[in-house]
Amino acid sequence: MANPVEGVDQSDAPYVIVSSDTHAGLFVEDYREYLDPSVHAEFDEWLAIRHHHRAMVEEVNGEYVEQWEQHNAEGLRGAYDPAVRDKMLDADGVAGEVIFADGDSVTGMESPPFGAGLQAGMITDSRLAWAGARAHNRWLVEFCASNPPRRAGVALVPVTHGIDEAVKEIESLAGKPGIKGIMIPTMWHDKPSYGHKSYDPVWAACAEAGLVVHTHSGEADTPAYNENMAQFMLEVAFWTHRPLWQLLLSGKFDRFPNLKYVPVECGSWWVADLLFKTDVMFGGTNWKVKKMASRTRSLIERLPSEYFGTNVFIGASAMSKPEIRRRYANGLDALMWGTDYPHPEGTWPNTVERLTTDFRAVPVEETRLLLGLNAVRCYDLDLDELTTIAAEVGPTPTQLNQDLSLRTPTDAVREARFWFDDYGIEWKG
Amino acid sequence: MANPVEGVDQSDAPYVIVSSDTHAGLFVEDYREYLDPSVHAEFDEWLAIRHHHRAMVEEVNGEYVEQWEQHNAEGLRGAYDPAVRDKMLDADGVAGEVIFADGDSVTGMESPPFGAGLQAGMITDSRLAWAGARAHNRWLVEFCASNPPRRAGVALVPVTHGIDEAVKEIESLAGKPGIKGIMIPTMWHDKPSYGHKSYDPVWAACAEAGLVVHTHSGEADTPAYNENMAQFMLEVAFWTHRPLWQLLLSGKFDRFPNLKYVPVECGSWWVADLLFKTDVMFGGTNWKVKKMASRTRSLIERLPSEYFGTNVFIGASAMSKPEIRRRYANGLDALMWGTDYPHPEGTWPNTVERLTTDFRAVPVEETRLLLGLNAVRCYDLDLDELTTIAAEVGPTPTQLNQDLSLRTPTDAVREARFWFDDYGIEWKG
Repeated sequence: MANPVEGVDQSDAPYVIVSSDTHAGLFVEDYREYLDPSVHAEFDEWLAIRHHHRAMVEEVNGEYVEQWEQHNAEGLRGAYDPAVRDKMLDADGVAGEVIFADGDSVTGMESPPFGAGLQAGMITDSRLAWAGARAHNRWLVEFCASNPPRRAGVALVPVTHGIDEAVKEIESLAGKPGIKGIMIPTMWHDKPSYGHKSYDPVWAACAEAGLVVHTHSGEADTPAYNENMAQFMLEVAFWTHRPLWQLLLSGKFDRFPNLKYVPVECGSWWVADLLFKTDVMFGGTNWKVKKMASRTRSLIERLPSEYFGTNVFIGASAMSKPEIRRRYANGLDALMWGTDYPHPEGTWPNTVERLTTDFRAVPVEETRLLLGLNAVRCYDLDLDELTTIAAEVGPTPTQLNQDLSLRTPTDAVREARFWFDDYGIEWKG
Repeated sequence: MANPVEGVDQSDAPYVIVSSDTHAGLFVEDYREYLDPSVHAEFDEWLAIRHHHRAMVEEVNGEYVEQWEQHNAEGLRGAYDPAVRDKMLDADGVAGEVIFADGDSVTGMESPPFGAGLQAGMITDSRLAWAGARAHNRWLVEFCASNPPRRAGVALVPVTHGIDEAVKEIESLAGKPGIKGIMIPTMWHDKPSYGHKSYDPVWAACAEAGLVVHTHSGEADTPAYNENMAQFMLEVAFWTHRPLWQLLLSGKFDRFPNLKYVPVECGSWWVADLLFKTDVMFGGTNWKVKKMASRTRSLIERLPSEYFGTNVFIGASAMSKPEIRRRYANGLDALMWGTDYPHPEGTWPNTVERLTTDFRAVPVEETRLLLGLNAVRCYDLDLDELTTIAAEVGPTPTQLNQDLSLRTPTDAVREARFWFDDYGIEWKG
């Protein structure tokens, strides 16, 4: 890759922070007016199930739910109220945001109809999956129009429930102010996997419309866990980033060079090792590839790591310190910080405080990429407008306890990507 | 963990190398005499399919097959000829070995009947799965008896094809000289996952019999790859080590403290990151575990990393240099080197040559653990007998270009396991 920090502002100017992972949604009942009347009867049944679910969560974890909702009563309204939302983003130092469905991750009371958000793959009736997705999309278009430079909305397109419908929905979303991507179901269940050619019209339509494709953490192979929560927590990252390799290794980014894909809220700790394994498959020269090479080399045109930062970005949410330390190997031009607002597992409402500790040892130029500029590039956001907002709300490097004299070492990326030297892969850096 | 290198020989004495990953098996036809006659008709059909498979491989990759088989004609006979095998081990510097099925990974002509070895999970007729497994086990018992101190045989127990049969087979294998473990199917397919309580009688029987449970690389979610070989290569490690977390996170090592489990030939590059994620789940104090903690903390008694080196060992085969560099984080007392003899993707017949480059920077005491002593402890092998063999065949540290003055830094493991400090986990090291 070209040097990603070249030309990036090293001054103490405020950071243009773009949260690559936020959530918004109406209270479940309020989706009714956005929903096709033909499914209202089924919607009422689903509402009853949803309320029952909340009651169960309250029974198991009532104290926590009450505390979270009382302490954050105003901020949680930002899930659907644009004015409150802007106030929360301001206070959190965030200029722009990439918005996913399911505002309420605690009791699920802001999910799109029929669970068409983070669990869309689990819906069995395709008619309902589309009705729910379209209801959310209609609302999302309105919501993003409330402040387009600030909001990048990710619409719901449950491709496993129909390719033709998906293409139609993508075409109807193209060019809507503030709509910057689509989210597909994390898992394909009994449908063809995402590398299958049957989905090509979807990728073509997204590339044409400039809509970034996403999978977002939420689903996993639940039946396999026998209700063991730790197994869900361990595997959920795998199931979320699995589609990335389906697309990349089957050459979709060669066939559709404008296609972009982002796996969201599944961390970034796995990135370098999977690039290590796949770069070696395609570029290794001192590795035993005898049998395999003939069957892999022709599948894609570049090394897997070369698609990162152009076609592939990582919605790394609130990166852990170990993940920040590995930024050179994982991709200085591909990683995007996110707050997960208004979910409790994220950094809101303490984002700036968190940043004051975690980025101390990181040069300013790199921090600018991770906190905002990579997202600006991925989603083609309006940097001028965002900079104007950030001038009012963004923290400065000094406020984040950073040392303005730190610079990115010249060989940082090459040294971090050890597999090039270890396996004799040609370095084009 | 206690300091794993304490008391380990730092001298230039020859290494006791135990290959934790070798393969053995008869030519497919020769399994007939070990097979229950009631399945001979089905066996003949299967043989025809097998020969057809070889013909197809030859068509696609004939030159490679011919070259491999001609260049290694004698050594490949070691898959079933004990005298040839010992000669190969000697020349490769290897004292002892842990033996899996499927001697021929190139064209599959030494697979147990009906594919009951590395692909046992894919068999649909349980009667055939058991017939094939038992045929191989009968032969393996004879084969290991040819030189028990040197050979640790891993029998086939396709648990997904019947729990009661599995327990019976384990009980009949208990105490057979040279039988040290069982291999279960890598994937459970449409059966309950391995954390499910229905398998508990199997784990109880293995703990009682002192047989180590294994999954070995070979199967993956093939239908999802649309014949894309790179996707298979990327995911095969996940599918192979997935059962480890099923057992560990569901508390099987608490319930059966003598139970041991080893995932084989799926590398070790993933180990530290998954320990990082799971240790934090169970021991993290400065992490946002609000919602999750109540649902995970009671599942197991120790931190996940604390089961490594006692209940969990890693059959890391020919560790790559990056994996060797990460040995402190991955588990100095859990990693076991392996040659994969007689498979072409392994180090045979150049094992010593490979070792002369890869372990240069590793202290002798650590190398002894990785190359042999961890396996001796995992499989309760006869160290005296193996040392006698190694005195004749094992390379010395000097022959491996090692520096005898290198010592393990006192804080090496703690520093490598960054997540203890980063997440406020109590260090008991």
